[in-house]
Formats: sequence, structure tokens, C-alpha cells
Amino acid sequence: IYTLGIDVGSTASKCIMLKDGQEIVAKSLIDVGAGTSGPQRAIDAVLENAGMKKEDMAFTLATGYGRNSLMNFADKQMSELSCHARGAYFLFPDVHTVIDIGGQDVKVLHIDNGAMTNFQMNDKCAAGTGRFLDVMAGVLEVKVQDLGHLDSLSKKRVEISSTCTVFAESEVISQLSMGTDKCDIIAGIHRSVAHRVTGLAHRIGVVPALVMTGGVAQNEGVVKALQNELGCEIHRSPLTQYNGALGAALYAYQAASRRA
Amino acid sequence: IYTLGIDVGSTASKCIMLKDGQEIVAKSLIDVGAGTSGPQRAIDAVLENAGMKKEDMAFTLATGYGRNSLMNFADKQMSELSCHARGAYFLFPDVHTVIDIGGQDVKVLHIDNGAMTNFQMNDKCAAGTGRFLDVMAGVLEVKVQDLGHLDSLSKKRVEISSTCTVFAESEVISQLSMGTDKCDIIAGIHRSVAHRVTGLAHRIGVVPALVMTGGVAQNEGVVKALQNELGCEIHRSPLTQYNGALGAALYAYQAASRRA
Ligand code: SF4
Repeated sequence: IYTLGIDVGSTASKCIMLKDGQEIVAKSLIDVGAGTSGPQRAIDAVLENAGMKKEDMAFTLATGYGRNSLMNFADKQMSELSCHARGAYFLFPDVHTVIDIGGQDVKVLHIDNGAMTNFQMNDKCAAGTGRFLDVMAGVLEVKVQDLGHLDSLSKKRVEISSTCTVFAESEVISQLSMGTDKCDIIAGIHRSVAHRVTGLAHRIGVVPALVMTGGVAQNEGVVKALQNELGCEIHRSPLTQYNGALGAALYAYQAASRRA
Repeated sequence: IYTLGIDVGSTASKCIMLKDGQEIVAKSLIDVGAGTSGPQRAIDAVLENAGMKKEDMAFTLATGYGRNSLMNFADKQMSELSCHARGAYFLFPDVHTVIDIGGQDVKVLHIDNGAMTNFQMNDKCAAGTGRFLDVMAGVLEVKVQDLGHLDSLSKKRVEISSTCTVFAESEVISQLSMGTDKCDIIAGIHRSVAHRVTGLAHRIGVVPALVMTGGVAQNEGVVKALQNELGCEIHRSPLTQYNGALGAALYAYQAASRRA
């Protein structure tokens, strides 16, 4: 049987199609999220990739910030916290901590035997999120996806002392006006993100294995800075951005099995 | 005897010259603060206004975020919290609570018999500060000093649900794109500030008389919104922006009297 998981995030829409709760048949990612055509386009894309129709899905489950927009399409909605825990456990059976940095929020989950037992979430402040990096990339006039590489070219330690997006932006502007190298500034920005996220993570404690998910997990600079600050190895999967959708597809399989 | 109080804020430099710890002889305000020529220009201006020289001052006391830059000029440095409490008590002998909204921070002080007995401060987040209003005025393409008046023209309630500067900015941009009236958006922004500041104030409790100081106290819209949310009358003085400098000058008088 086939099940579909859809993760409607704040800045991207992701789908995963699973066969028998085991095998990833198809996936899709559209770079716009809640309140846009992104969710529908992601669904169309994943069905097309698999050469299937909605009717072929035994169960469809929606998660993420904008999941309620799929009230009529999906069989069920579920919190992204549960789906992230489930997705990470599928990819890394040893996982005890998940740090998910999304476009507008940061979540830290504690997981025991695949179930989430505690969490901390910051969804009211842009500091430490993908949004923070977007703002900084804008001021620096570089592409967000180049931040990780540029960080690796840094030669000198530059301190960005604020974690607040607004105050850090001012620090970056003043560093630029002093002629500081962009790569050094970027490394400082990544340490600021790591610092913010570490503060959140320490509130529930970090137990290895530690898995990082969400769009920002693709930024090597943030991963390295976070690894340094936490003193703990970070595991990632190429499916990092699909983690929530994967969890949703797994829960969908569970629901379909129960129904059968 | 004459004493001088200097308040080097993040966005403005202010001086107050007192005669015998009672009478305000001269004052000055320069619209740039710490790390600029502002402090020196404010000092030059207040001395010129009074027709006096530095040597005529029995004691000079510096306060505020950038007070340490006057290490060689002032006889003493003192925390802005103490100076704000002292200034407000001089202007309003009944004061028990001071809410000071500055360019980059928000302070709430509890005062008993003129002495500060408790405080809450937010200096790591731009939400609810003058900086928040600067950012919003920028997006709305209006002058910060016009925000209060524009708020008074609002006819419809518009909700800005985020208190984070970054997320609120996005809400404002999307309201503008929907054609929402700027005045209504501005009133929503002021309620967002009031909401943030109220959260901070409730942590120590608000006991009347409540005095509001700092640059943002000149914004009628914020004052009205804060009054509504706190359910408590707000007192202000025309010297609102000079409150810290006034407290510094009063402490300077106390130090000079002791020395005499
Ligand atoms: S710290 Fe900065 S980014 Fe965070 S809520 Fe405050 S204004 Fe927003």
C-alpha cells in the first residue's frame, strides 16, 4: 500500500510517498509554503514523479505550520513535532535529540524509543532561524545557499555579539563599513545562530545521537558551529528537509494499517 | 552649586545642568548616542546654553549605555536604572513604577520612596523598543515622529499579531500589499509594542503612579495603547527624554554635597 505525507512549512512544501511504510517511492519540494500554491504544486509533483493518482494513496497525512489548509485533501492532520520525531527515528534508529531549524522556527525534540517525550520550540522570534540567515544574506548581498561555503573560507574570528536579528543586522552593517571580510562575518553569523539554538537545546538537554533536520541543516557552517558549541557530533540525512513529510507518511501508513 | 548629568543612550545624548539640586538651568539633546560625537556635542551645547564652563560644575555624573566613554570627563559613572528612578521621583514624587522605552531597550522599574527596589529590562531584543518603531516607519515610509498622529486617524482595528520585529515587519508588508490603511496598521503596531511592554511590566507588577519616560513616551499612540492594555493612567513630563540625565544631575548634586 502507498501512503502520502505532506509537510506545509512556513517557507517550503514537501511531500514523501511511501510504499508499505518502508520504501520512499517519490518525493517533492517546492520552495514556497503556507498560504501559497506550494502545497498543491508539491502534491501534484510527487504524484507525477510516482506516476500515481490521489486515489492510489491508502492514507494521506498533512503536517507543518500550514497543515490546516489541506483539511479537505488529507485524511488527517498531525503536529509537526510528532512527525519530525517519527521521521528522524526512521532515518536514525539511535536518535535521542532532534534539532530542527526551519524557515521561521527552531525546535528541539527529545526522543525515547522513537516517541517524543519532551520538546522546546521557538516560533515567536526570528533569531536563529532560516529567516535570520535570509536577512543576513540580504545585507551581505550573497545567496543564502552560498553561506556555508563562504564560511569555510573564513580566516579571522569576527564576533557578532547579538542574537537578535535586528541588532545582529546592525553589527553586520557596521562590520561591512569597517571593511571586514564577508566570509569572516558569515562565520560570526553562524556562531550567533549556534549560540541561540544551543541555549534552546540546553533547556531540555542534548542526548546523543543528535540529528539535525530542516532547511538550515544544509548549511555546513551552521552545522559546524553548532557541533563546536554543543561538543556533540551532528548526524544528517540527505532527506533532512523531508523529515517532517517522512514522519507524516509513516504515521499515514500506521493509520492505513489500522484501518485495514 | 552647579552639577551636570549626562545620559549617553544608544540613539541620543542628553544633558541636564542643575543649580543646587533643585533648578534646571540648562538642557541639551543631540540625536546620536554612544560611539558618536553626540555626547561631546551635548556637553558643549548644555554649557553654552548656560554660559558656563566645565570648571564651574561642582560634580559631573555620566549614565546610560555609553557612559564609560566619558570615563575621563565625568567624576563618576552610574547605572541608568538608578538615574531613571531618581529622575522620575524628582518629577513625580508619587511614582511607584517607571516604564522607560528607549532606542534599543525597555526597562520597567519599581520604586519605593524614590529608590529602585526591583526592575525588569529587555536589552537583547528589538521588539517593543524605539528600534522596532524605526523599522516599521521605514517599511511604511512615514516619519517616526508622525506615528502618534497617524495612529489617531485610525478607523479600523488591524491586528499585527507578532511582537518580533522581523515577523511584524512581514505582517506590515503583507497588510500594505492588501491595501490596508497605513493609519490602521500603525495603530496595530502600537498595540504590538504595548503588548510586549506589558508582558515585561507584569513580571514585576505595575503599582500607580505609573510614569513613562524615554523617547518613545513622546508617541501618543504607544502611550494610549499601553494605557489601555495596562488599565492604568500614564504620567509623563515634557522632560521625558531627559529623565536619565536629570537623575544623573541629582546624584551629582548628592555627591557634591557630600564632598563639601
Ligand atoms: S530578539 Fe530580535 S528576532 Fe527575536 S523576537 Fe526580538 S526582535 Fe525578533
